Amino acid sequence: MQILLTVAYDGTAYAGWQRQQNAIAVQQRLEEALSTLLSRPITINAASRTDAGVHALGQRAAFFADDLRVSLKKLPQVINGLLPPDISVTAAQAVCDNFNPRFDAEYKIYTYNTYCAATPNPLLRRYSAYVPQMLDIQAMKKAAGMFAGRHDFAAFMATGSSAKTTVREIFSCDVRETQPGLIALTITGNGFLYNMVRIIAGTVLYVGLGKILPQDIPMIISSCDRTKAGKTMPPEGLTLVEVGYKQDKLLCNG
Amino acid sequence: MQILLTVAYDGTAYAGWQRQQNAIAVQQRLEEALSTLLSRPITINAASRTDAGVHALGQRAAFFADDLRVSLKKLPQVINGLLPPDISVTAAQAVCDNFNPRFDAEYKIYTYNTYCAATPNPLLRRYSAYVPQMLDIQAMKKAAGMFAGRHDFAAFMATGSSAKTTVREIFSCDVRETQPGLIALTITGNGFLYNMVRIIAGTVLYVGLGKILPQDIPMIISSCDRTKAGKTMPPEGLTLVEVGYKQDKLLCNG
Repeated sequence: MQILLTVAYDGTAYAGWQRQQNAIAVQQRLEEALSTLLSRPITINAASRTDAGVHALGQRAAFFADDLRVSLKKLPQVINGLLPPDISVTAAQAVCDNFNPRFDAEYKIYTYNTYCAATPNPLLRRYSAYVPQMLDIQAMKKAAGMFAGRHDFAAFMATGSSAKTTVREIFSCDVRETQPGLIALTITGNGFLYNMVRIIAGTVLYVGLGKILPQDIPMIISSCDRTKAGKTMPPEGLTLVEVGYKQDKLLCNG
Repeated sequence: MQILLTVAYDGTAYAGWQRQQNAIAVQQRLEEALSTLLSRPITINAASRTDAGVHALGQRAAFFADDLRVSLKKLPQVINGLLPPDISVTAAQAVCDNFNPRFDAEYKIYTYNTYCAATPNPLLRRYSAYVPQMLDIQAMKKAAGMFAGRHDFAAFMATGSSAKTTVREIFSCDVRETQPGLIALTITGNGFLYNMVRIIAGTVLYVGLGKILPQDIPMIISSCDRTKAGKTMPPEGLTLVEVGYKQDKLLCNG
């Protein structure tokens, strides 16, 4: 039986999702907890390999086990008892053996938070980037909307990455002020290139600062030139909010 | 000249506001920063001596200085450059020499956050208490409202504290769900006894759990019996949001 977990974590203390040689990754902590529970080595496959310092509310990760001694309903609490407090399994469900949490994802939702005020807010610093300058939020909203659609996002990919194709579809991208000074960019797409959300967030920030005009976004996209886009924002503002699957991918139909 | 600062901090790493012999307090970090800036020892007086682990968005603290070499407008950024990232000065203003940030406070606002869900949320764990049981939020709202008014709050004071009088006036106390599962109790009063907000939050939580009825609150208050009230909630859920002063206390009228 393959089991799919929903996982939330505060990425501050971790070298990212993926297991590393010389640093602690979220994957390692979760595999250690499952290995303790099942008394044998467990390997998990995740939907997204989030970078060092990036957070998650709805990461998905799957593993195989026919020897679970607890119900799926109780499984999150039992695993959480074996995890540090900055990682939490929030749900568990059975899926087909041929289900793949990464390749079967229909969409992913990320949020990038930026806190804009004259002085930093220590209660937001772990989960947002801080910007002391005034931002034009209306211009940022306009710019964000222009990322929607199927485009070649080569201009919004970290140099040195080796994606087969740089075409991705963005279903929605919007900006709103969720509390005074806290600006959330929420983006939904069928997939994201390496650092793509952090570069889009940096480009929308440049619009807020008046360095780029909203109407320049289509031209920056079509240029396929990384140097035309904004800076790569720091990891602490990024959260993987949700990974969505088609219902028929999750259910075993024989 | 006396200068009044507004100070925000993440209390997680600190032994509270007040200077300690064997642990780091927020007061010490702020006094060190000001002493570095002015090249002489500085002592500050705060509005509230928040406990270990308690946060602040609007703590107030005052010190005397006639030798500031920066404008009051620039002062927050300059001090922040000398402070760790979990403490931030958000404003500075000149006040009368006879102004006292503690005794001249007209009101204080605290928020107590509780996260209620089947599993913990690692992104909220530093700033809220976690409760796995279902809560009756309507009953909690009803109970919170009953704390308003001038009462003897002896039942809501940690044992062993030595307040001259246990009578305080609560101007408002309400409960609302600020995001799914996150329940904020916000209380405004002219002063608070030791651990009073955390005990009121624990009593309102007991109402949410069905252990106490909302209509029992007046009886618990009038009993002046600590054992009738709920438990003292942990410090991480508590934030000092604001300290208010009458305008004439802040201004020097000769």
